Amino acid sequence: MSKLVIVGTVAFDAIETPFGKTDKILGGAATYIGLAASQFNVDGAIVSVVGGDFPKEDIKMLQEKGMDVSGLEIVENGKTFFWSGKYRNDMNTRDTLITDLNVLAEFTPKVPSAYKNSKVVMLGNLHPLVQMSVIEQMDSPELIVLDTMNFWMDSALEDLNKVIAKVDVITINDEEARQLSGEYSLVKAAQKIMEMGPKYVVIKKGEHGALLFGEDEVFFAPALPLEEVFDPTGAGDTFAGGFTGYLAKTEDYSFENMKRAIIHGSALASFCVEKFGPERLLKLSKKEVHQRLQQFKSLTQFEIELK
Amino acid sequence: MSKLVIVGTVAFDAIETPFGKTDKILGGAATYIGLAASQFNVDGAIVSVVGGDFPKEDIKMLQEKGMDVSGLEIVENGKTFFWSGKYRNDMNTRDTLITDLNVLAEFTPKVPSAYKNSKVVMLGNLHPLVQMSVIEQMDSPELIVLDTMNFWMDSALEDLNKVIAKVDVITINDEEARQLSGEYSLVKAAQKIMEMGPKYVVIKKGEHGALLFGEDEVFFAPALPLEEVFDPTGAGDTFAGGFTGYLAKTEDYSFENMKRAIIHGSALASFCVEKFGPERLLKLSKKEVHQRLQQFKSLTQFEIELK
Repeated sequence: MSKLVIVGTVAFDAIETPFGKTDKILGGAATYIGLAASQFNVDGAIVSVVGGDFPKEDIKMLQEKGMDVSGLEIVENGKTFFWSGKYRNDMNTRDTLITDLNVLAEFTPKVPSAYKNSKVVMLGNLHPLVQMSVIEQMDSPELIVLDTMNFWMDSALEDLNKVIAKVDVITINDEEARQLSGEYSLVKAAQKIMEMGPKYVVIKKGEHGALLFGEDEVFFAPALPLEEVFDPTGAGDTFAGGFTGYLAKTEDYSFENMKRAIIHGSALASFCVEKFGPERLLKLSKKEVHQRLQQFKSLTQFEIELK
Repeated sequence: MSKLVIVGTVAFDAIETPFGKTDKILGGAATYIGLAASQFNVDGAIVSVVGGDFPKEDIKMLQEKGMDVSGLEIVENGKTFFWSGKYRNDMNTRDTLITDLNVLAEFTPKVPSAYKNSKVVMLGNLHPLVQMSVIEQMDSPELIVLDTMNFWMDSALEDLNKVIAKVDVITINDEEARQLSGEYSLVKAAQKIMEMGPKYVVIKKGEHGALLFGEDEVFFAPALPLEEVFDPTGAGDTFAGGFTGYLAKTEDYSFENMKRAIIHGSALASFCVEKFGPERLLKLSKKEVHQRLQQFKSLTQFEIELK
């Protein structure tokens, strides 16, 4: 069991989907990552920033889930990062309505000294310079996982490339992999991205699952076919949290174990989309997770004799 | 080993992709289905129609692959069905440039008497009335597989529904499943379609793989991630041919065996897209197929202990 450092937003989200809408609710990449990682009882620390308007009970909840919050800065006279978005009917595209950076605009991450020796680092989607600062504060991590998005490819590519050169795993979606590599074929895109630094590339395809590429290997995990996707917000972060949480717990970074980590991440993400925000993750029993892993097995496993 | 009846087009195709273009080459649903099914050395019969312009050596080729062609009518003074299409840069969308029905316009299928007792029937994409005529000529088939498309949902839905009520398996793509059922969620779409008749629904998602739904079960087979998709023409038919060919060979219509059939279909389809038209299927060694099945195993199989 390794310690896990998580950097990312802790935020308010207001979400509208074809099924309804919320007021400001708990959100943010680090929130979802932390909640997913907590399923593995890892000793995790959330490095982030919130304003004085952030509910103390949400901080307490993260602590009760086993997350250290000494690296969660509270700017008492500031406001918490706020994002608002609306999903279209297909649930695959969303329009951002509001992005108020607030306290995030001047965020300088501080990794708690007790966590500088963590072996696993999860860099949630943030400005590449913030991600780099976290890398530089770590003693000698064994596995750094990077999540990023097209926004940083458009606005801070040089900084992003420096981060990419330093990480072991990158998780991005298919369109972002194409943009970053200039290759339409995801196989070629992954190869090019691996040349930029990472040993493993995880390409997230939303409802179409996720691909894991290693040097000479590739693995595919489908998304669980669901009757209803209620709210996709946080699914990618939940996936990343399940992935790194499992790897921090097992401390085995082989391709075989990454496959298991991908399946665990996919299983947790499949819960996330069932309710608004992180609601479903907050009340998740071991038994439910176990049953869902069993569903992933039934969904994908087959017997063909090959002599 | 069961006999297999295949009804579908035998045609000329002219294809343009970002990688190049062809003159009129061999095409048609029944051609791809037959070539894929021939991998399993099944005793298959192609029921179709061509014009006097159709090359005798192509008919001979189908025979050499083990296909009975006594149900392949030759209208000497007619012209073979011709389709021409152009793929866009993403290779997922194509525009139809020409559709000359020619001899297909007055096609009345005749199942050879030696094949009326076949246990497996593959109804390739054609007018539902033609598909129904084939069903009515069969003695007592154990498995009828239907392929169809949105064109018939738009133009001949009543006839199509009658066919759907009589088949065991339907294979359609995701958009067609949504159109046919009126449900966006593929899980709900499959449930509704099963209420219309079929015991199993196969939803093809192209580069995103295929889903197999049974009463209480679901299985997912990814498409093999390829460096280059050269020409997608015939991939869906090749999938269907591999699927039914494997089932005709094994005569086991359980969900477990359907899973194997789906994997075999996916493996053969992954070859089809590597070259123009059916070229790649014509020269396919057992060893190559074996290696590709192995790739599907590596791509999807994982070990997670669930107590």
